[in-house]
Amino acid sequence: MSAEAREGRLAGFLDAIDYRPEDPELIERALRHRSAQGRNNERLEFLGDAVLDTVVSRVLFNRFPHATEGVLSRLRASVVKDESLAELSAGLGLGDLVALGPGELKSGGARRDSIMADALEAVFGAVFIDGGYDAAEHVILAVMRDRLETLELDAARKDAKTELQERLQRDGLALPEYALTDTSGPAHRQRFRASCRVVAIDAITEGEGSSRRRAEQRAAQAMLSRLTGVPADA
Amino acid sequence: MSAEAREGRLAGFLDAIDYRPEDPELIERALRHRSAQGRNNERLEFLGDAVLDTVVSRVLFNRFPHATEGVLSRLRASVVKDESLAELSAGLGLGDLVALGPGELKSGGARRDSIMADALEAVFGAVFIDGGYDAAEHVILAVMRDRLETLELDAARKDAKTELQERLQRDGLALPEYALTDTSGPAHRQRFRASCRVVAIDAITEGEGSSRRRAEQRAAQAMLSRLTGVPADA
Repeated sequence: MSAEAREGRLAGFLDAIDYRPEDPELIERALRHRSAQGRNNERLEFLGDAVLDTVVSRVLFNRFPHATEGVLSRLRASVVKDESLAELSAGLGLGDLVALGPGELKSGGARRDSIMADALEAVFGAVFIDGGYDAAEHVILAVMRDRLETLELDAARKDAKTELQERLQRDGLALPEYALTDTSGPAHRQRFRASCRVVAIDAITEGEGSSRRRAEQRAAQAMLSRLTGVPADA
Repeated sequence: MSAEAREGRLAGFLDAIDYRPEDPELIERALRHRSAQGRNNERLEFLGDAVLDTVVSRVLFNRFPHATEGVLSRLRASVVKDESLAELSAGLGLGDLVALGPGELKSGGARRDSIMADALEAVFGAVFIDGGYDAAEHVILAVMRDRLETLELDAARKDAKTELQERLQRDGLALPEYALTDTSGPAHRQRFRASCRVVAIDAITEGEGSSRRRAEQRAAQAMLSRLTGVPADA
């Protein structure tokens, strides 16, 4: 690509992220992969990774007021993972703009995803240094708004029994005990009632459903709700 | 502790972090560990963890212009680890302010460190929501300035051979090859010369020193410098 053509692509990229850098060299550095010669984007990527996490965390925090920390973490991970960022990178035309060393020119797949994701994060870091936090937030939202707006809470939910188990393990507590406490109704429309007991905190919850599994899930959900203070139906 | 005494402690804490919340309930929530009843600090801690990383990253980025990304990461980890944050928490008197559930009241050691660290991070998250990024940065710097100013670059440096090896492994490249290329001088004042070769990028560097080990370290440092674009004596 000629220097002129590259200039045009870069201008298009800056339009797309809606940013005019004070110091254009910072953006150039963000686009220099560490396989290339000269000052590269590693330090900027370190910074951009952090500021991206912060901006995305605040958006998720506000948008999902009843999501637990576990759900917020999983949502954030899905947004900032290499694969997602690489897709955004490609959409912004970064593929033609990132400077690579000879060893990386023909790398493909996951490796290429990581290079493209790093470059985008480095751009966020460059904007953060160049224009401050608000500028970085503006650019990150310009790039990610669609992705953030279409996020679905359910995708990040684990089933309640798994989430409860992970939570108790993290706290070094014993696993919950489930028991079937009641069945009722005719054979083809049976109802099940199950209990979930966490000995360490001396708590029992119950759940009901059309199968034993569903009843246990609801009992686990009720226990989670008690532990997190977040309503079970949120 | 009486409600009045607690009020006084809280005021002292807010003085120490130099912040007046718009919404004092956010600070109260930040001080409620998840073992306690009611809305707890988990979501705020998720947010505070991110904004703390961002503020600390920017400080380190500016303060150590020649540190590699690897060194910056290690420096940051040393600043934001539970143990460090718990110490700051204790200094701010958070120990008396954090609301715990009955199961946690007598927990000690690492578990207590993590509770105290989480509460401090949650306070950062609460300030971020309450007053925005600049307010969070102000509070984080108020709390951490001394710690950040006394950080030493050397503490975060690994020896060059280790750093080079980790870097190549991360890139999926073969390990470097070291060779003794020359010795000179009388037996009691011998000088050694070693080479470091990275086949994948077809590069060789050399180093000299009063022992074979030192010569290899310098050769590795020269290779790192070539790979990162950061001067070897930085």
